[in-house]
Amino acid sequence: MELTETQRQELAEAEAQRHETRRPVSPGLEAMLFRPLPVLDHGFVRVVDYMGDDSAVVQAARVSYGRGTRAANEDRGLIRYLMRHRHSTPFEMCEIKYHVKLPIFVARQWIRHRMANINEYSARYSILDREFYLPAPEQLAAQSAVNRQGRGAVLEGDQAAHVLDLLREDATRNYDHYLEMLNEDAEGRVIEEGRTGLARELARMNLTLNAYTQWYWKADLHNLLNFLALRADSHAQYEIRVYADAMLDTVKAWVPLVHEAFRDYRQGAVTLSAQMLAVVRGIAAGADPRQEGSGLSKREWRELMAMLGREA
Amino acid sequence: MELTETQRQELAEAEAQRHETRRPVSPGLEAMLFRPLPVLDHGFVRVVDYMGDDSAVVQAARVSYGRGTRAANEDRGLIRYLMRHRHSTPFEMCEIKYHVKLPIFVARQWIRHRMANINEYSARYSILDREFYLPAPEQLAAQSAVNRQGRGAVLEGDQAAHVLDLLREDATRNYDHYLEMLNEDAEGRVIEEGRTGLARELARMNLTLNAYTQWYWKADLHNLLNFLALRADSHAQYEIRVYADAMLDTVKAWVPLVHEAFRDYRQGAVTLSAQMLAVVRGIAAGADPRQEGSGLSKREWRELMAMLGREA
Amino acid sequence: MELTETQRQELAEAEAQRHETRRPVSPGLEAMLFRPLPVLDHGFVRVVDYMGDDSAVVQAARVSYGRGTRAANEDRGLIRYLMRHRHSTPFEMCEIKYHVKLPIFVARQWIRHRMANINEYSARYSILDREFYLPAPEQLAAQSAVNRQGRGAVLEGDQAAHVLDLLREDATRNYDHYLEMLNEDAEGRVIEEGRTGLARELARMNLTLNAYTQWYWKADLHNLLNFLALRADSHAQYEIRVYADAMLDTVKAWVPLVHEAFRDYRQGAVTLSAQMLAVVRGIAAGADPRQEGSGLSKREWRELMAMLGREA
Amino acid sequence: MELTETQRQELAEAEAQRHETRRPVSPGLEAMLFRPLPVLDHGFVRVVDYMGDDSAVVQAARVSYGRGTRAANEDRGLIRYLMRHRHSTPFEMCEIKYHVKLPIFVARQWIRHRMANINEYSARYSILDREFYLPAPEQLAAQSAVNRQGRGAVLEGDQAAHVLDLLREDATRNYDHYLEMLNEDAEGRVIEEGRTGLARELARMNLTLNAYTQWYWKADLHNLLNFLALRADSHAQYEIRVYADAMLDTVKAWVPLVHEAFRDYRQGAVTLSAQMLAVVRGIAAGADPRQEGSGLSKREWRELMAMLGREA
Repeated sequence: MELTETQRQELAEAEAQRHETRRPVSPGLEAMLFRPLPVLDHGFVRVVDYMGDDSAVVQAARVSYGRGTRAANEDRGLIRYLMRHRHSTPFEMCEIKYHVKLPIFVARQWIRHRMANINEYSARYSILDREFYLPAPEQLAAQSAVNRQGRGAVLEGDQAAHVLDLLREDATRNYDHYLEMLNEDAEGRVIEEGRTGLARELARMNLTLNAYTQWYWKADLHNLLNFLALRADSHAQYEIRVYADAMLDTVKAWVPLVHEAFRDYRQGAVTLSAQMLAVVRGIAAGADPRQEGSGLSKREWRELMAMLGREA
Repeated sequence: MELTETQRQELAEAEAQRHETRRPVSPGLEAMLFRPLPVLDHGFVRVVDYMGDDSAVVQAARVSYGRGTRAANEDRGLIRYLMRHRHSTPFEMCEIKYHVKLPIFVARQWIRHRMANINEYSARYSILDREFYLPAPEQLAAQSAVNRQGRGAVLEGDQAAHVLDLLREDATRNYDHYLEMLNEDAEGRVIEEGRTGLARELARMNLTLNAYTQWYWKADLHNLLNFLALRADSHAQYEIRVYADAMLDTVKAWVPLVHEAFRDYRQGAVTLSAQMLAVVRGIAAGADPRQEGSGLSKREWRELMAMLGREA
Repeated sequence: MELTETQRQELAEAEAQRHETRRPVSPGLEAMLFRPLPVLDHGFVRVVDYMGDDSAVVQAARVSYGRGTRAANEDRGLIRYLMRHRHSTPFEMCEIKYHVKLPIFVARQWIRHRMANINEYSARYSILDREFYLPAPEQLAAQSAVNRQGRGAVLEGDQAAHVLDLLREDATRNYDHYLEMLNEDAEGRVIEEGRTGLARELARMNLTLNAYTQWYWKADLHNLLNFLALRADSHAQYEIRVYADAMLDTVKAWVPLVHEAFRDYRQGAVTLSAQMLAVVRGIAAGADPRQEGSGLSKREWRELMAMLGREA
Repeated sequence: MELTETQRQELAEAEAQRHETRRPVSPGLEAMLFRPLPVLDHGFVRVVDYMGDDSAVVQAARVSYGRGTRAANEDRGLIRYLMRHRHSTPFEMCEIKYHVKLPIFVARQWIRHRMANINEYSARYSILDREFYLPAPEQLAAQSAVNRQGRGAVLEGDQAAHVLDLLREDATRNYDHYLEMLNEDAEGRVIEEGRTGLARELARMNLTLNAYTQWYWKADLHNLLNFLALRADSHAQYEIRVYADAMLDTVKAWVPLVHEAFRDYRQGAVTLSAQMLAVVRGIAAGADPRQEGSGLSKREWRELMAMLGREA
């Protein structure tokens, strides 16, 4: 994440500005505003704007509950109640906007979350930066033997070095050929006078999927939490999870009560199927149930036992 | 729009607060924040929060255009370009939240705009206010003879008085019976000790469609403009148009450049069908085209002539 | 649910038609097509069209899994896996369209599900039927004393009769006044020649919320299941639950494997918060945990004990 | 677009099947079902399923218009009316599902249309085909000098050959290295026993943006037309336009009346801003307006004159 001098100056100016507002303010998030949180080797996430705070969730819920409940509940209890019962509309009343720099293959996963607003840097108009993601050595994982979408042991020695060489050389060469076809350098200056460059919308197809792009991404708090529930999770691919982890830190600073409820009722929660519940009720009644006859597959059984802290 | 003492106090407190923020601020909208703009006889619209301003649209667009255009365009020109070419995503980067009090039959039209977040006051939990919409005399229109969804001449004299009597009496009686069934008064106090009240979720069905409800309604600027293009328009029913008109005033205060572009390229714009365009080209070439053979229906022909300021 | 002769004939014609198609067909749902399933006193749900079946879910999932898994999984297992892990996109590949007749206050709850397509009968253009919902005696429930949104004991005797009288008389009177203001009867015939009728878009505001409306409602299977998870549930208001129950029957006929997975992994499933899980792990390890110190509120504790089949 | 023997067989089976259904059928689209329409060098679009036809639009609109209009309008007129006045909800009642094979950089544009359902072939699970898009010689365009997002003259001779060589060599080499890192061939067979392959979710980042992916893409007719209005248009990039053109052919076969209305009121239509309309009214009144003082920029003036078939 190397910023140009101009970008550094713009960030400093944005951070320095102070305005007076009547709107509610989240002190925790104000302190993080505009600062890029580094992610991967060249990426970042930074909060560009936000609307609302914990109390905005409460305020919206009370319109729908009306005056009767106003006195009865205090804010934390109400937020926990809403999270637990998946009353999602009050969380939609907060909004946040990020500027993100990320590899294209991560962007392709990310964009599957449709309930968000996006403006992406366009390679039809502009030239992409000469930056590509190269995994850190400890992330150079083999295909998992047991999980079709997971990672296994880390590659080592010559093999790891070879893979990194291929990734670096291919990305670099393809980027250099991209500029050559454009007949422009990374700052848009003509390389060879008199030679015609290929259209940008075509030349970009030579780039690799680990090239970095960037976008403005805006979502309401409910949809952001849905995104984080999936992506700040051990089943998510590492390269998107690190973005989600950084965003989770901004949520904690922004809406601490919502963050706590999210941790207890979403991140730390588990769902038991009808069959799993029957097994748990059996255990609670002193029985010693077994996989056979439980209606659970072996895999579900193993998962349930792991959940309960038992040997499968 | 009669506020209780408590509500008046809450509004005054909200208006009095001042915070420091690094976020961009719209001075025009800050001045309007929290104040109810009266609409119809008991309704209002008030801005509760917002995010972004004219420059947020520009900033988002420039991520997607990239550094090359940064110098070339100035903000107003870029915003007009985006509006004209219906590049909608940069407008999605601004967000606004309203608190609205409105008759239920207006709420039923309004909610057809799905791209918004809503928290409505719930009559399952709470008791609605004793307020119903009664049209002003000049709004007591007859069914239009030519337009199935329009209004004709205004009713007058005895007939108008009779209609107003019916509306007032029926709404009042039904509301009183609603309380009677609940065995509660409008403040939720038991009317007759020892008598059981009907469940709120049932009793509400006795209310009329001109009873007032209220909600928090939040949308991004793009979807808000879509709403206003349809509802702040002469074809919209008067009772929703007055809400849209009030909201348009808030847009003007909030994002003046966007508002100006909206006026020129959406509100004041017309669309010509392929056949209409052919007629206009004929006129521009000095011909004197007629409806017969134009491919336009009589109605379309009349509309085109009206657009052009000609006799049909 | 009284159909006119014309409507009866249209239904009979629709049911009688047979076409040849290359598209997949759901035999179970074909048998139910077009037939109104009666709901409440005058309402109905009927399937008007559909797209896809169980195998469409599998087919879509296998594009995203690719050739490797093709042989390994059989359809039922894959559908259960997708449901369990909340992989929602394959379920979005099936679509269903209903024609529904329902009271307006139910329609107002229903429409909060935004991820659907709706065309509602418009009272701006047309005259509504003379039909309103009157609860059956066993549904005339008092407000619950413990649950702000629930029902308590059933009203009886004089009190029940009185409530029903009020509901019937108010709805009838208001409807009659609606026609009087329109100066039209329910079939749109002028009542009194020479008198001007109030515009339909205005007169409708005199109707009560138990008047019936109707709409076409279309959703994909994923969003339909979200709707059913909330509305075919004991926490939903009775008057919308009976619609959801009827729709659940159509889902069972349409996509039996999806229906079975929905029952096991959504309807019959429970979610344990982080704190609840800790309690359950304690029980599984032989401990006898108590509410104090568990991090659970009394209400959550009671719920957990009920889930486990234990005394609280 | 080379299909494997298995794929060819699956297609033949799908095409051969015949079922009986009560649902409406579109004969024109039935004839195209399942058949891949070739697009670009290795891509295709094929219709996999559909729901509804022209009459479904009419049927839905008439619920919202009610019985009164039933006799007055005939189908074609009503569909044209709806299209002209942008009444979009009746068009949402039809649905279509495509299977598409397309280059990744096209997929990245396409997916910006959020109102659709997608299941994409996953390179986390599976190995992509050894196919990449190489522009045909007449598509090897230079960057436009006047339009930042357009194409200029076609590259020729050595330069064109050199660009094609770079694209082909880079894509091929990167794909081969992708397999080498995976230690698998394109069919998933291990290349070198005993060597550990890199995880698929990582190796894919070495692919170029002209590699082909595939997905199931489903949308309702309203959102499909929005997609086609933007993408089957001369301003769209050629590589996505050819997909949109093929899809437009399927729309014509499926809903001929809707297609005709779309052509007249969307594709062939133009929008005049408030200022443009003033100029046109001037011309219609016999004046000879000029750019100065018109409120139009030079670019807008040129566009208007071109629209009117006049010299700028």
